[in-house]
Amino acid sequence: PKVITLPGDGIGPEVTAAAVQVLREVAPDVTLEEHALGGGAYDAHGDPFPARTRDALAEADAVLLGTVGGAHDSAWNKLPRHLRPESGLLALRKALGCYANLRPVRVQPGLEHLSPLKPELARGVDILIVRELLGGIYFDGDRQIEGDSAYNTMRYTTAEVERVAKVAFWAAEQRKGRVTSVDKANVLEVSELWRRDVQALRDREYRSIHLNHEYVDSVAMLIVADPSRYDVIVTENLFGDILSDLAAVIPGSLGLMPSASLGDGPGLFEPIHGSAPDIAGKGVANPAAAIMSVGMLLRHGLERPDAANQVDRAVALALREQPTRDLGGQADTRTFTRAVMRALG
Amino acid sequence: PKVITLPGDGIGPEVTAAAVQVLREVAPDVTLEEHALGGGAYDAHGDPFPARTRDALAEADAVLLGTVGGAHDSAWNKLPRHLRPESGLLALRKALGCYANLRPVRVQPGLEHLSPLKPELARGVDILIVRELLGGIYFDGDRQIEGDSAYNTMRYTTAEVERVAKVAFWAAEQRKGRVTSVDKANVLEVSELWRRDVQALRDREYRSIHLNHEYVDSVAMLIVADPSRYDVIVTENLFGDILSDLAAVIPGSLGLMPSASLGDGPGLFEPIHGSAPDIAGKGVANPAAAIMSVGMLLRHGLERPDAANQVDRAVALALREQPTRDLGGQADTRTFTRAVMRALG
Ligand SMILES: CC(C)[C@H](C(=O)O)[C@@H](O)C(=O)O
Ligand SMILES: CC(C)[C@H](C(=O)O)[C@@H](O)C(=O)O
Repeated sequence: PKVITLPGDGIGPEVTAAAVQVLREVAPDVTLEEHALGGGAYDAHGDPFPARTRDALAEADAVLLGTVGGAHDSAWNKLPRHLRPESGLLALRKALGCYANLRPVRVQPGLEHLSPLKPELARGVDILIVRELLGGIYFDGDRQIEGDSAYNTMRYTTAEVERVAKVAFWAAEQRKGRVTSVDKANVLEVSELWRRDVQALRDREYRSIHLNHEYVDSVAMLIVADPSRYDVIVTENLFGDILSDLAAVIPGSLGLMPSASLGDGPGLFEPIHGSAPDIAGKGVANPAAAIMSVGMLLRHGLERPDAANQVDRAVALALREQPTRDLGGQADTRTFTRAVMRALG
Repeated sequence: PKVITLPGDGIGPEVTAAAVQVLREVAPDVTLEEHALGGGAYDAHGDPFPARTRDALAEADAVLLGTVGGAHDSAWNKLPRHLRPESGLLALRKALGCYANLRPVRVQPGLEHLSPLKPELARGVDILIVRELLGGIYFDGDRQIEGDSAYNTMRYTTAEVERVAKVAFWAAEQRKGRVTSVDKANVLEVSELWRRDVQALRDREYRSIHLNHEYVDSVAMLIVADPSRYDVIVTENLFGDILSDLAAVIPGSLGLMPSASLGDGPGLFEPIHGSAPDIAGKGVANPAAAIMSVGMLLRHGLERPDAANQVDRAVALALREQPTRDLGGQADTRTFTRAVMRALG
């Protein structure tokens, strides 16, 4: 099998190098091919999602991404929107057809103290957020800024709702069997459709799943006040962007948060943290999330659950033995990666 | 001056009665007039915002609202959208022209332990969220659900952005002078307009204010991970709905959260908690937020800062002396209200 790596910007190359080292170890038969994406790709090729990168996807079984983007005041952010690093990422998602973004939020036993929440609230949290990734207000072509007025359109079709809801139900079947669908149906028509279609699909094809519906404002509260009430959360693109980042603070470090984006073609696997330009190139970035993304790649991209479990266990061990600086420890990127490699072999 | 009271549904009447008792005590010259809004108004008049209520607003100097809405499975939620309790609330906001919703989030000294956050994070939090309340995706007429597809439109004009940003800058001048404007300008054109106009207004008229811009997903993280970094937050309607509810969990009880909605006409003052149908009529609801809303009414609606301070101090005292059940104490509605009255006089 072939994996395309897209190290990207900032700390992306460092954490991807660590992840690649782990991937080579547990899946030596995988072919790796590196390509450009993001700000660096724009600098080199005039396009944050160059044609050569796009073409390479055709042969990929999975894609491993680092991070894209620069500092707040970076020159990249002054480019026209379609040339900015983020546009490269959005175009990549679109090209891959990855409509379901899976973000597991798990508080590792023994690491409760890292959470901003009280330990008794953080303990045992294990949520999977399934975010719709190709629809809604992100991609709809009916958008405009002109003079003193601007708008965007949040649109969904039944087909878009159903395909992502299926992923959520399928995931819940392998977990506690509970799905919370999040919307703003008391105000938005597009949420009314969402709620109706998720419920109809459950009633038609997933009767063993316990489904409930909650409003996005209420979920934003409860995910902090009582995170253990959630198993799988499924929601549309913009709400998912907000809620998945919110939930990601519960474990206490973004350095621990991998993600998988799945669709009809090859999956996209990436840590959810940003490019952290302030520490880029210093060798201190925590590569745990990138390595955990390799775990998700093995599980969902290459269907190798045993290798995935191996990676997950090795990361958990290394986190206890060699915590990185963001976790209050001392380990730099290399030391942590070495601890993972040791735990693997 | 004349204050219209709209007790509404659920625990609304109980907490409003307590609030009215306090208002009479500190402002005996105020005339009070009660009207119907929400589910009860629909039951009695076939309309969640009856004409009689609407007409009464013409003579009001301020409006004191309880809560509206029923249980999740209530019959009200099965009505056509425009007859549901929430529509009454949205229509009221529109009728009053209240475009700026102010929600102070303050952790009272000594009550840090109530927060879901670690006490060291909760301590000293003092944020004012200013939410645009009449624009964006809530009210735009370009909306539809038909067959297998639905959409809503998030639209803003410069005039709408500026009038609410002014309120945020004005509020910041009386606080620490820092405003964080929240958007999703890396994806949305409507956010690009928002950001541009907020910045231009600051550069033109509020040069002493320190303004920065952050993405909504990042703010959802940071408001939990590091809430002390914020002074005033200003944002559009939907982001404000989510972020203000999120921030409201920090003090640990929704029972402590008042709000003020201001515009060109009379202001609207209400607790942010829901109608809590499960405890309605039992006399145990915490009226603190409703009473604190009287504080905001005195300050922003009737311009009586001394009376407002009196109420705020009395509530703080009563919270320590007679905490209610949601705060881990014993006091019911009446006992708590009595403690406030004692502290007042
Ligand atoms: C960078 C940005 C476009 C992106 C998004 O909003 O989807 C990011 O926030 C994410 O969640 O992956
Ligand atoms: C009830 C609902 C329409 C309302 C809103 O979304 O504005 C509520 O959540 C609020 O924040 O006051």
